[in-house]
Amino acid sequence: MTITPGSPEPVVTSTDLIPAPADRIPTPKATPPDVVRCAYMELVVTDLAASREFYVDVLDLVVTEEDENAVYLRSFEEFIHHNLVLRKGPVAAVAAFAYRVRTPEDLDRAVAFYTELGCRVERRAEGFTKGVGDSVRVEDPLGFPYEFFYEVEHVERLAWRYDLYTPGALVRIDHFNQVTPDVPRAVKYMEDLGFRVTEDIQDEAGSTYAAWMRRKPTVHDTAMTGGDGPRMHHVAFATHEKHNIIAICDKLGALRRSDCIERGPGRHGVSNAFYLYLRDPDGHRVEIYTQDYYTGDPDNPVVTWDVHDNQRRDWWGNPVVPSWYTEASTVLDLDGNPQPLTTRTDDSEMDVTIGADGFSYTRKGEEAQGFKLGAQV
Amino acid sequence: MTITPGSPEPVVTSTDLIPAPADRIPTPKATPPDVVRCAYMELVVTDLAASREFYVDVLDLVVTEEDENAVYLRSFEEFIHHNLVLRKGPVAAVAAFAYRVRTPEDLDRAVAFYTELGCRVERRAEGFTKGVGDSVRVEDPLGFPYEFFYEVEHVERLAWRYDLYTPGALVRIDHFNQVTPDVPRAVKYMEDLGFRVTEDIQDEAGSTYAAWMRRKPTVHDTAMTGGDGPRMHHVAFATHEKHNIIAICDKLGALRRSDCIERGPGRHGVSNAFYLYLRDPDGHRVEIYTQDYYTGDPDNPVVTWDVHDNQRRDWWGNPVVPSWYTEASTVLDLDGNPQPLTTRTDDSEMDVTIGADGFSYTRKGEEAQGFKLGAQV
Amino acid sequence: MTITPGSPEPVVTSTDLIPAPADRIPTPKATPPDVVRCAYMELVVTDLAASREFYVDVLDLVVTEEDENAVYLRSFEEFIHHNLVLRKGPVAAVAAFAYRVRTPEDLDRAVAFYTELGCRVERRAEGFTKGVGDSVRVEDPLGFPYEFFYEVEHVERLAWRYDLYTPGALVRIDHFNQVTPDVPRAVKYMEDLGFRVTEDIQDEAGSTYAAWMRRKPTVHDTAMTGGDGPRMHHVAFATHEKHNIIAICDKLGALRRSDCIERGPGRHGVSNAFYLYLRDPDGHRVEIYTQDYYTGDPDNPVVTWDVHDNQRRDWWGNPVVPSWYTEASTVLDLDGNPQPLTTRTDDSEMDVTIGADGFSYTRKGEEAQGFKLGAQV
Amino acid sequence: MTITPGSPEPVVTSTDLIPAPADRIPTPKATPPDVVRCAYMELVVTDLAASREFYVDVLDLVVTEEDENAVYLRSFEEFIHHNLVLRKGPVAAVAAFAYRVRTPEDLDRAVAFYTELGCRVERRAEGFTKGVGDSVRVEDPLGFPYEFFYEVEHVERLAWRYDLYTPGALVRIDHFNQVTPDVPRAVKYMEDLGFRVTEDIQDEAGSTYAAWMRRKPTVHDTAMTGGDGPRMHHVAFATHEKHNIIAICDKLGALRRSDCIERGPGRHGVSNAFYLYLRDPDGHRVEIYTQDYYTGDPDNPVVTWDVHDNQRRDWWGNPVVPSWYTEASTVLDLDGNPQPLTTRTDDSEMDVTIGADGFSYTRKGEEAQGFKLGAQV
Repeated sequence: MTITPGSPEPVVTSTDLIPAPADRIPTPKATPPDVVRCAYMELVVTDLAASREFYVDVLDLVVTEEDENAVYLRSFEEFIHHNLVLRKGPVAAVAAFAYRVRTPEDLDRAVAFYTELGCRVERRAEGFTKGVGDSVRVEDPLGFPYEFFYEVEHVERLAWRYDLYTPGALVRIDHFNQVTPDVPRAVKYMEDLGFRVTEDIQDEAGSTYAAWMRRKPTVHDTAMTGGDGPRMHHVAFATHEKHNIIAICDKLGALRRSDCIERGPGRHGVSNAFYLYLRDPDGHRVEIYTQDYYTGDPDNPVVTWDVHDNQRRDWWGNPVVPSWYTEASTVLDLDGNPQPLTTRTDDSEMDVTIGADGFSYTRKGEEAQGFKLGAQV
Repeated sequence: MTITPGSPEPVVTSTDLIPAPADRIPTPKATPPDVVRCAYMELVVTDLAASREFYVDVLDLVVTEEDENAVYLRSFEEFIHHNLVLRKGPVAAVAAFAYRVRTPEDLDRAVAFYTELGCRVERRAEGFTKGVGDSVRVEDPLGFPYEFFYEVEHVERLAWRYDLYTPGALVRIDHFNQVTPDVPRAVKYMEDLGFRVTEDIQDEAGSTYAAWMRRKPTVHDTAMTGGDGPRMHHVAFATHEKHNIIAICDKLGALRRSDCIERGPGRHGVSNAFYLYLRDPDGHRVEIYTQDYYTGDPDNPVVTWDVHDNQRRDWWGNPVVPSWYTEASTVLDLDGNPQPLTTRTDDSEMDVTIGADGFSYTRKGEEAQGFKLGAQV
Repeated sequence: MTITPGSPEPVVTSTDLIPAPADRIPTPKATPPDVVRCAYMELVVTDLAASREFYVDVLDLVVTEEDENAVYLRSFEEFIHHNLVLRKGPVAAVAAFAYRVRTPEDLDRAVAFYTELGCRVERRAEGFTKGVGDSVRVEDPLGFPYEFFYEVEHVERLAWRYDLYTPGALVRIDHFNQVTPDVPRAVKYMEDLGFRVTEDIQDEAGSTYAAWMRRKPTVHDTAMTGGDGPRMHHVAFATHEKHNIIAICDKLGALRRSDCIERGPGRHGVSNAFYLYLRDPDGHRVEIYTQDYYTGDPDNPVVTWDVHDNQRRDWWGNPVVPSWYTEASTVLDLDGNPQPLTTRTDDSEMDVTIGADGFSYTRKGEEAQGFKLGAQV
Repeated sequence: MTITPGSPEPVVTSTDLIPAPADRIPTPKATPPDVVRCAYMELVVTDLAASREFYVDVLDLVVTEEDENAVYLRSFEEFIHHNLVLRKGPVAAVAAFAYRVRTPEDLDRAVAFYTELGCRVERRAEGFTKGVGDSVRVEDPLGFPYEFFYEVEHVERLAWRYDLYTPGALVRIDHFNQVTPDVPRAVKYMEDLGFRVTEDIQDEAGSTYAAWMRRKPTVHDTAMTGGDGPRMHHVAFATHEKHNIIAICDKLGALRRSDCIERGPGRHGVSNAFYLYLRDPDGHRVEIYTQDYYTGDPDNPVVTWDVHDNQRRDWWGNPVVPSWYTEASTVLDLDGNPQPLTTRTDDSEMDVTIGADGFSYTRKGEEAQGFKLGAQV
C-alpha cells in the first residue's frame, strides 16, 4: 500500500529528549559491564505456599527447583536456571533485579563501575541464589538492589514441549519496571550503564514522567516510572500471542480470582504491546505482555508521548486505575532491610491526567469527554 | 481429563426460574410466527455521512446498496440484502428490530398474533426497506417496533472473499438487546412468541434484572435488559476470533477515535462470549461479540446468575461503566414518533451492585475488595 | 466497503443441483423424526487403553464416566453425557451414529419411518449406552447403524471452566462423515429424513462426489462421501479458534506422534472451515474443525463445487493424501457384525483429480501446474 | 508445573558441533564489521508490474518509494527506507543481501575484511539503492553479493497505524536463506564475520546439511542450506501471530492464486517458528514466519537435528516438496552477471530422507510408516 500522512502521533526523534537532571549522578570513568538482558527477579514473599500456587498453578511458570524456603521458576523458552525466585521472608519485597552480562569479566567491570559510584558492592563466587554462580550485587545510586551474573546452570529449554504448554503459557521474562522520584536522573545513570531510551512520557513544561530503556532489542529491559522510590513497579513475562493473555484472564475468572486482575487487558500506546497487570498474593505486580517491536538498531527512533495523550498508557483510552499509579513493592538493601523512600517532587502523572486538576485528550486540541470511568476519580 | 467439582458457579436449571410477572400479557390463542433469527436493525441517524463513515470505513461492514437517504449494510457471511439500515432522520432512534421467519405464511401468523394482542399492525407487500419484500411491522406489547419478513433479495455471501476481509471483519449479525421496565413481563410475552430463555440475572429477593432469549441456537437473538423503556440497548455483530475484536480497538486508537469505546473488550460471564461495546456518532450502542455456545437442544440448561456476582457481566471482574447501564436509544412507533418511556420500578442493577448501597463479590460470602475503578462511582 | 464482482467461485443456487438417483429409496409416508443434531458416535476400539490415551491424554476430551469396557467422553461445551463412546471390541468399527431428536415422541416416529423403509429397527427403553435413555437403533437403507434418542443424562457444561481448558480444547461435536457408493441416492433418503444439502461436489457430466447435509444451522451434521460403503469417513470436533488446531499439531509433534496427522491443517473450500485430520490408534479418522458459517435460513444458498477445482477440498490448493480418499472405518450391523461393502460405480474423486487420468485447476480454464506433491501420485 | 524428562529431542550443546571443513577459508586478521541485522534484499524481477502486484497488492508490503525501474518496500514496524527492493532486470536474480552495521566506521572494517579475503569490494558513498547512503558491496568468498551499510533514510514506523494493517500484515524482515555447496565451510567464514550458529542439521556420518546463524537475537539473520550454489533460497518476513499467516493463505485462495503456495503453513522443528513458503511471479521464494525464540545470550544452546528426524523441517511431519529442496534463485556478481554454480558433493538432504535410498523417522529407532505424501516421491 501507499501511505498517506497519518493521524497525530507522538513525537519521534533520533535521540531522547529527556532534559538533564538538576542533580546528575556523575558518569564513572570505569567501563560499565556489558549487560545482555534482564534475567530474573528475586521476590520476597510472606506466604510461600500461596505464592507458589499463584505462579505455578495459576500462571503455569515452570519449577526448576524448590526447597522449603524458595521456589525457582522459569518461563517456557528459558534455558537458564530461573527467571523468578520466590523466597520466603517476613516482608513482601524485592531482593534483586538481576541482569545477565556477556562475559565473566563483566563482573569485574560491575564492581569497578559501582565502586566508583560510591555504591555498596558485594560479590559472591558461589552466587546469591541456587543455579547462579559468581555474582555481584549492589545498592545502586537510586537505591535498587541490582545483580549482575554470567555463570548460570543451563536447563531444558521447553520451547518445543507443546505437551506441557497451557493456554496462557509464559515464554520469556521481558522486563522490570522501577519507581524512582527523579526520572531524568535515573535515565542518565542508566545510560551510563549502557542502556538506551526507546520511549518516554513528558509534558510541554519539561517534566518527564516515565522512560523505557533497553539492552536487548525490545522496547525495554527496565523502565523508570516517576514516583516515590526506590520501589518495584512490576516484573513482566511475555506470551506468544494475545489470546494467551486472554486465557489467563479467563482462567482467573474460572478460579474466582478475577480480583487479582488490576488493569487490562489492553493495548499500550507506549511500546505498542498487548498487556495485562495482575497482583500476586503479596501485592507484587506482574505484567503479562506481548508484541512490542524490534529496537536493536543504533539509531532506533525514540518516541516521546505527551502525558495528556489519553492513548499513551492505553491505546484504547481505557482508564488507568489509581492503584496502578500509587502502589508498588518495597525493595531491600543488601542486608535485607527495606529501603527508605524518597518522595517525588515533580508532577504526578495521575494528578495531571485525571482528577480535578488534570486532563487527557483523545485528539489533541479537543477537550476530553465521554462516558468512561476514570475522569471522576 | 477427569473433572473434579468446580468453583462456585451460577445456578443451572432445566427451565427458566423467572417468576411470573404481576402484570402478565395474555397468551394469544393464535399460533406465533416461526421466527428463524434476528436479521437486521433499521437505525435512524442524524448525520448519514458520519454514520456511514463509522459503519463502513471504521467497522468495515459491506455496502449492499445506498442512496442519499439510506445505506444498506451487511456482514461478511450474510447472504440476505442487509443486516443494518442507516436511514437519515431528525432524531437518532431505532425504526425496526427485524426478524426473519421460516415461510411466507408466517407473516399471516404474525398479523393474527399481534392483532389478538391488541397491537398496531402494518403489512406492506413491497416491504419497508429496499431488498426486503412482503413484511409485517408491529408496535409490540412492550412498545418496540418489531418487523417480520420472509422475502428478501439474495446477495453474494462473502465468506470466501478473503481478499476483502479486514482485521476486524464482522461476519454475522448476532443479536439485539432491548431495555424494558419489567423483565419477567417481557420474557413471558417473548416465550409466547416462541423464544426460549438461555440465561438470566436475578437476585435472592426475586427481582429479575435481565434475560437472554433465543430462536437460533446461540445464547440469544435478543435480550431483555431492565430499565426505563422501551429503548434499544445495542445491536451486536460477530467476528470469527477474539483477535478480530482487538483489531477493532487498535484501529480506533490509530484513528484517534478510542473515545467511541464505551466498555471492554472483555469476557462476559453471561453467554461466555468475548465482547466490546462501541458508541456510534449518534450514541447508538454496537456490540462486537464472539464465541458463545450452542443452545439448540430442547432442554438446553438455563443459567441464572446472581446480580451480586461480580463476574456475571465481566468474567474478569472489570467494572461496567455507568453509561452502559443508563443510556440507550429511543425507539419509534410506526409513524416514526419516539415512544414514551415507562420507568422501571424494580431494583436497578447498577444501584444494587455499585455505589453506596450496592455490593458485588468475586467469591460468594467474601466481601468485595480491591483496587479497581467502579466501586467508587 | 463496496464490493466489486469477485473471482470465479463455485456455483451458488437456491436448492441443491444433485440429480435424481437411478435407484431412489422410496419416500416413506411416515413423518420423519425431528432430528436436532448429531450428538455422539460409538466407536469400537481394539485397545481401550491406547484409545483412551489418544482421546483423553492427547486430545483432552473430558471423561464423563468409564469402566473396563468403555469410556464416555464429551467436549468442553457439551451438557449431555457424551459425544464419543470408546467401546472395547474385537474389530475396529463404528457401532452407532447417534442423533438427538426434539421430543420423546420422535422415537415413535423414527420407528415408524424406518419400519416403513423396511429396515431393521431396535428400540431399548434403557438405551444402548450409559447416560442415554430410551433409544432407537436402525440399520438404515444405506447400511449405517443410526441411533435416535431424546432422554439423556445432563452433566456439567464446562464452557466456563477455563481452569481446565488446554491449548487444543475441543468444545463441540460438529459432524459425522459417511462413505457410501451412490451419493445422490443417499442424499434423497437423508432429505426425506429432514436433512438439507448445504454444499456438494459435482462434475459437468453429472456425477456427484460428495454432499454436506445439516439439521442444526451449520454446514453439516453429516456428509455423504462417494466410495465403497457403508463406511465411516470421520467424526469431527470443533475448537473455538484456529490456533487451537495448531496447538494440537504442535502437541503431537512434542509427543513424537506427528505420524497420526493424516492431512492438514488447512482451510476447506467446501464449508470454509479450518481443518485437521488425525488417525486414532485403530485408524479411525477424527477431524478437528472450526469456523464454518450459519446455514439456518430456509433458503440458505447451496454451493456446488466443480470436482476439478483444486481449491474445493483445500482452499490453499494443498494436495489430499490418497489414504484420505481410500481408507475409512468399518460400520457394524445391530448384531455387531461388520457390514459388507458395496463398490462405488460412479467416478472416483481421486481418479478424476489426480494421477494419470485426472486433473485439477487453480483457475478454471488454465492447466494445472506447479511444484506441489500430489500430481505425481 | 514440574517437568518430567521429555520425549526424545535433538541434541543440545553449548557450541556448534559442525566439523571443520576440508577447505577452510582463512580467518582474516582484520576486525569484521559489527553487523546489526539483515536489513534488506535487492531482487531483480523480470516483470516489475507483476512483482509489485504480488508484494504490494497481495502481501501488503508498504511502498516507501517507487519509479519506473524499482519499487522500495518495507514492513509495518520498519523505520528504515526499505526491506525489499524490486528492480526491473532481464533475469530473475538477487542483486544484494544487505546488512545494517552498527557505525559508519564498520564500512571501513568491511572493506578491510573482504579485501584481506581477496574478494572484490566496491564502495559507493551515495549508496547502491535509493534511501541508503555510503555502502560497501562485495562478492563474498561463497560467491554471494553482500552489502553493508549504516546510513539510511528514516521513514514512519507504522507499528501503531492499525488503520492500515491488513489481516496478513508483515511486520519485520526476519532473515535470508542461502544455498551453498559446503555448509561447514560457509559456517566457519560466517563465524569469522561475527555470526553464531543457533541450530543445524547433521547426520551421524558427519555431513552437515544446513545451519542457522544469527547476529540479532533471533534464530537467524541468515541460514546456509546445502546445495548447488551460490543461490538464494528465500527471504523471510515476520507476522505478529499465526493467524496472520493463515490469512495470507486464505487471501491467495480468494484471489485464485493458491498455486503460489509452495509449502506450508506448518511449524518448523528447526527454529520452532510457524511458517509458509510462497513463490513470487519470478519464482523467488518468500517465507512468512512467526514466533521463533530469543537467542541473545552468549552461551545460547545450539540445537543439532538429525537429518533423518522427520520433524526437523516440519514439526508435524508433513513432507517437504521436492521443489523446496531443488529450486533457488540465481545471485549476481557486482557487474550484474549471474554467478556460476558449484555443485554440492556432500549428501543431499532430499536424497537421504525421501525416495528410494532415504528414510525419515518420527520416533528414533522405529521405521517410518504412514499415509502421507512424500515417501513415494
